[in-house]
Amino acid sequence: MKKIAILGSTGSIGTQTLEVVRENGDIEVQGIAAGSNIRLLEKQIREFHPRIAAVWSKEKAGELKACISDTDTKVVSGMDGLLEVSTLGNTEILVTAIVGMIGIRPTIEGIKAGKDIALANKETLVTAGHIIMPLARENRVSILPVDSEHSAIFQSLQGNEQKALHKILLTASGGPFRGKKEEELLEIRVEDALKHPNWAMGQKITIDSSTMVNKGLEVIEAKWLFGVDVDQVQVVVQPQSIIHSMVEYVDGAIMAQLGTPDMKLPIQYALYYPKRRFLPGERIDFWSLGKLDFEKPDMDTFYGLKLAYDAGRKGGTLPTVFNAANELAVRQFLNREIKYLEIVEIIEDCMQAHKNIDNPSLQEILDAEAATYDRINSRR
Amino acid sequence: MKKIAILGSTGSIGTQTLEVVRENGDIEVQGIAAGSNIRLLEKQIREFHPRIAAVWSKEKAGELKACISDTDTKVVSGMDGLLEVSTLGNTEILVTAIVGMIGIRPTIEGIKAGKDIALANKETLVTAGHIIMPLARENRVSILPVDSEHSAIFQSLQGNEQKALHKILLTASGGPFRGKKEEELLEIRVEDALKHPNWAMGQKITIDSSTMVNKGLEVIEAKWLFGVDVDQVQVVVQPQSIIHSMVEYVDGAIMAQLGTPDMKLPIQYALYYPKRRFLPGERIDFWSLGKLDFEKPDMDTFYGLKLAYDAGRKGGTLPTVFNAANELAVRQFLNREIKYLEIVEIIEDCMQAHKNIDNPSLQEILDAEAATYDRINSRR
Repeated sequence: MKKIAILGSTGSIGTQTLEVVRENGDIEVQGIAAGSNIRLLEKQIREFHPRIAAVWSKEKAGELKACISDTDTKVVSGMDGLLEVSTLGNTEILVTAIVGMIGIRPTIEGIKAGKDIALANKETLVTAGHIIMPLARENRVSILPVDSEHSAIFQSLQGNEQKALHKILLTASGGPFRGKKEEELLEIRVEDALKHPNWAMGQKITIDSSTMVNKGLEVIEAKWLFGVDVDQVQVVVQPQSIIHSMVEYVDGAIMAQLGTPDMKLPIQYALYYPKRRFLPGERIDFWSLGKLDFEKPDMDTFYGLKLAYDAGRKGGTLPTVFNAANELAVRQFLNREIKYLEIVEIIEDCMQAHKNIDNPSLQEILDAEAATYDRINSRR
Repeated sequence: MKKIAILGSTGSIGTQTLEVVRENGDIEVQGIAAGSNIRLLEKQIREFHPRIAAVWSKEKAGELKACISDTDTKVVSGMDGLLEVSTLGNTEILVTAIVGMIGIRPTIEGIKAGKDIALANKETLVTAGHIIMPLARENRVSILPVDSEHSAIFQSLQGNEQKALHKILLTASGGPFRGKKEEELLEIRVEDALKHPNWAMGQKITIDSSTMVNKGLEVIEAKWLFGVDVDQVQVVVQPQSIIHSMVEYVDGAIMAQLGTPDMKLPIQYALYYPKRRFLPGERIDFWSLGKLDFEKPDMDTFYGLKLAYDAGRKGGTLPTVFNAANELAVRQFLNREIKYLEIVEIIEDCMQAHKNIDNPSLQEILDAEAATYDRINSRR
């Protein structure tokens, strides 16, 4: 039995990870952690019998404890709880599907405890890639990407030497506003931005996908995961989202991974890597597929992507500012406090105001995040 | 220095192999063999200094000997000459780029002598796959495919287990007559059939590409190379010839290799496998590519492909009959002795008349070839 722990078990990636566990039947879930959704946590505890469950909120942890007093699962809370789940005795893989910078410390401690990381938390590499990647090498653990694009790149790199990699072709759907110009985006409402053409995802990432900020974060992640410069990462719009990403080698060969949009594929690939298992689901029928389109991304209209390249190129605390500004601005947009185009304006403003710190410590990263939030909040 | 020998050094694959050797500068060509083009052979001898050169024709071998008496290269001829080149002392890779069933014996002897085979000769696996593949396993040599499609499949299989392979998606350009119906093919002339939309190749293979018989031969080759049933090989028409082929795994993931149409890529990949080297040449620009189309092949009009599936499914000597009938029929078409549609009619007639022999010996294969030629020649 493979032993895993899941941070963020009640979210989209977390629940799909548990589906993969359920379908395969040979993975033991030793620990789970979630924010506050204790109703779902209770169900998960009763089905998967983890040794330990962490709830971020102390209060909710108390409630959960009362609910599951008939089980053997220990309930913990706060950052200490998260760290306990991350470093559990004999888990082999830690799935970090928690959202936000809160995921960084548990990931670091998981790596130090020798766990392979199935990484779904974007912030970890975007803000602290310079800390995480050397630490993973030092502790000889694998960072296994759990999102469609980076998993596709990872799969396309199998059986090849790192030095043969020439560039990464990161595909993008282009989102719901592909082809539109700035003036058409002035009056975009929350409802419009939440209509993603191909993927069913959380609200935050759906907005990020519409602004292409999400693709920008992926560019920075790819830099760390695959040891390239951001300028070796080319974003290619592939509106049907069938090609999940590609790699170009020094000989001109391009390896690509294609598939239906199903997050369970990268999740299962990470859990059983380097083996593949049967996965139920739809298959692509190339006889009826028709065509695949390719376009250059419009980085003038969607200049959040351009800002991400800037942040990734300069490094330091700038990617943290990029990410934090976007996070809060998107929340404000979802709360209808700002207009759609202001999201990227706010990111740009925060990046311009920021005094970059090279090779920042975790504390400096967290400080940069806090300073970014303060700046945005003081606008109101 | 890697040491190689090339059967068919003056043909399309042979000369491109030598270009790869020239560009890399760290491969020693120990032996070369050709049919009768001694002018080019002489040039190759003077540039690459092989220890031995084989010419099929005894007479031409004599002429060549006289021309290069100032060099250290030994000239040999006939099948004995071919076998001498195939089994040369310390060559590591034998490139079998010779055309026709004449390539089988040298390949067998090369395998027995422990050489890895960079295989460009189609007939070897189509007619004798049941002999070649077990022999390669027994002698622990690799069969490295040197054509665009099988190399793409081979590349897409790297880093994966054989048992994870669900099916092969063999791409086809569809040739110059894609979309046409039988009645439109009645009056096709040699000139029309020689216009391939994407690849510059020899005459025989260009005709085979137009009838899709070439794709049928590739289906049978794929069966042997990758240990699948022919019904696990799905032909997908991809008119732009950018996707060189794909593999679908049990989890639904599809791995594909894409590139510009350049035979030097699979040649170089085979010579340095599993490493990749820089290869000069055009690259695909996905920002300007536009689109890739996909279609189901029209196996009613191009029923040579359907016949190939029949031959591959039944095995025995039937694939030999399929191949031999096509070979002679294409020659007759190129000589303007028969009409275009008669090519496949002749193949079907020969297959129907043939009494299949299971698990044939090399002699039985050669007999089936001869009997097929006799039948076609007796039609006139």
